[in-house]
Amino acid sequence: MTTPTLDLSIELLKRPSVTPKDENCQNIIADRLANSGFVSEFMYFGEGDTERNAQVKNLWARRGNASPLVCFLGHTDVVPTGDEKNWTYPPFEPTIKDGYLYARGASDMKTAIACFTVACENFVKKHPNHNGSIALLLTSDEEGPSVNGTVKVVETLENRQEKIDYCLVGEPSGTNVLGDVIKNGRRGSLGGVLTVTGKQGHVAYPHLAVNPIHYAMPALNDLVAQTWDNGNDYFPPTTMQISNLNAGTGANNVIPQTLTAEFNFRFSTETNETELKAKTYAIFDKYFTDGKASFTIDWKLSGKPFLTEQGKLVNACQTAIKNVMNIDTELSTSGGTSDGRFVAPTGAQVVELGVLNATIHQVNECVAVDDLEKLTAIYEQILENLLT
Amino acid sequence: MTTPTLDLSIELLKRPSVTPKDENCQNIIADRLANSGFVSEFMYFGEGDTERNAQVKNLWARRGNASPLVCFLGHTDVVPTGDEKNWTYPPFEPTIKDGYLYARGASDMKTAIACFTVACENFVKKHPNHNGSIALLLTSDEEGPSVNGTVKVVETLENRQEKIDYCLVGEPSGTNVLGDVIKNGRRGSLGGVLTVTGKQGHVAYPHLAVNPIHYAMPALNDLVAQTWDNGNDYFPPTTMQISNLNAGTGANNVIPQTLTAEFNFRFSTETNETELKAKTYAIFDKYFTDGKASFTIDWKLSGKPFLTEQGKLVNACQTAIKNVMNIDTELSTSGGTSDGRFVAPTGAQVVELGVLNATIHQVNECVAVDDLEKLTAIYEQILENLLT
Repeated sequence: MTTPTLDLSIELLKRPSVTPKDENCQNIIADRLANSGFVSEFMYFGEGDTERNAQVKNLWARRGNASPLVCFLGHTDVVPTGDEKNWTYPPFEPTIKDGYLYARGASDMKTAIACFTVACENFVKKHPNHNGSIALLLTSDEEGPSVNGTVKVVETLENRQEKIDYCLVGEPSGTNVLGDVIKNGRRGSLGGVLTVTGKQGHVAYPHLAVNPIHYAMPALNDLVAQTWDNGNDYFPPTTMQISNLNAGTGANNVIPQTLTAEFNFRFSTETNETELKAKTYAIFDKYFTDGKASFTIDWKLSGKPFLTEQGKLVNACQTAIKNVMNIDTELSTSGGTSDGRFVAPTGAQVVELGVLNATIHQVNECVAVDDLEKLTAIYEQILENLLT
Repeated sequence: MTTPTLDLSIELLKRPSVTPKDENCQNIIADRLANSGFVSEFMYFGEGDTERNAQVKNLWARRGNASPLVCFLGHTDVVPTGDEKNWTYPPFEPTIKDGYLYARGASDMKTAIACFTVACENFVKKHPNHNGSIALLLTSDEEGPSVNGTVKVVETLENRQEKIDYCLVGEPSGTNVLGDVIKNGRRGSLGGVLTVTGKQGHVAYPHLAVNPIHYAMPALNDLVAQTWDNGNDYFPPTTMQISNLNAGTGANNVIPQTLTAEFNFRFSTETNETELKAKTYAIFDKYFTDGKASFTIDWKLSGKPFLTEQGKLVNACQTAIKNVMNIDTELSTSGGTSDGRFVAPTGAQVVELGVLNATIHQVNECVAVDDLEKLTAIYEQILENLLT
């Protein structure tokens, strides 16, 4: 039995839009939503930012000019298929079997785009004069470097004072049942590479050398014993893990010159990059006082933490899921990154809600066909909850 | 101006006796000493221990049967020359230039063999009825694996209750002036490889993993902070150095499964292998109590410490050096290993005294020609001091 959402999903899934390609998926959505009063704008970024040369194509489609603005955030690009011989059905020939729709992007995340598009059509038909505005922000650069995609569109919007109030990210978020988990934030990720420099020498003459292993040991011991914060209602306590620790020439009679330790913080909203750096420096400064050895730390911030507390958007999602699925939703801040991190700093409420994530990035990626109608209904109810 | 010691040195140095070859150097000494009443016995070890197949040839030459037995310990093998083009004079064509005798083995240690041989001849001539006995133990396996050389000869002597009382090792020991330093012992060397096994995982989910770096850190910190002993009059305090420390997959988001730390003790006679192992295990046992991570240590004893305290042999050496060189001798237990380690456990007093060690194992290895007569005189006086 065919439905508008299933039809549109299949239309998108046929297109082999491996990052950074869009294969005109965005055009299909733009054309379709034009009939519902959306105004579409393509934004090209990378290599001169022209349509011909751009590395990434993005779509900004909006209906209405009033506040609040509810924005659906998604991506038309998919990860590579790997060896197609390992797929039961060709990854770009969407196939329905035993109630599941198989194709690359079936879960992550072309079906959510279809669900939201049809939800918009249904909602607009019922509420042509709804409050606020609705927008779709689609990129073809989510699975890749994420340099010329959402981050650039958000920059453009901010420059012209166009403000997203509620951002619904269509990333697959469910664990066992559609809607059982929604993501209302993410921990921050801060990496550091510590280099300790001592003085090389012979193990038989340690007084003539400065062993960076021995010298750094009390500081490293202090570092791993540290409590960084106690987390909060939404985030577990901040953690620090040393992932790589290396020193030595390989010879067993040589005191090495340097030690390196690579470590990574996953941090809650109870702390921040600046505080974590300061605390780390304070630990090492305490032990490196006699000038015999020195240390440096190279930092890399991969992402700031963000959080959308219980409020209008979370409530709208929970109510819609309860109505359609008759289940309570768990709020989670776990997992990897998504483009939500680019929207959250603008002050928008951000929630991720999509299909189940069990098969993402895998061979035989799939989605339950029944979930497509349910997710369409959930998205439509969220629009009802926020804009009527 | 030629002398018996210089002549004999040159005769030995002409023979390219790179380990394990002897090139009949030992036969020259045996033939020569036969005239002074020494009885020579060749001992062949390795590959059936026959003359034809043996890997190593050793000489045990002894004069007299009474106690005490003064034994000169040396080796006729030399280290490889490296590229002969880098030598100013061909390494096996002994050349005198500006007061120096150049050849592979000039310092380490054919000249000391010549000095001692001539010292014996002189001494026996003056004291044909000296007290005790004199012996030479020469091997051709000192610079190599040291498996079929001195260690086997000492074993043979012990099996037949032939006991060395004073062992004079002819290894080059001088730093600036002939006789300025003699070695009266060596520290022990004990190596260990620690392996800590935790549980691999993702840095974002440390509660599901056991990071061996974090787990081992308090124990390693305790280990490096340890005082092992305070040394004594002859030995500096025992030291432990971690030479290699490694953990990590290379990826910065993976908690590794294992950590390895390679460490090495250089230990005094105030402790021993058993005690050091027990103390190390006690430290780790203290921290590995919850069963979440485990550790193993692979040990390797490279050498036990030995010491010849101030006594008859040291006194005999110091007095002889004072008489000939008019300098005071420094006692030292520093430096690498020598075959003295095989003789010391028999209860013998062991001292190393030879020419300067500045050029050993190097290109253009050399010795001051003048030092040959002086060392011959020192050796002769030592015999006087001990056996008349």
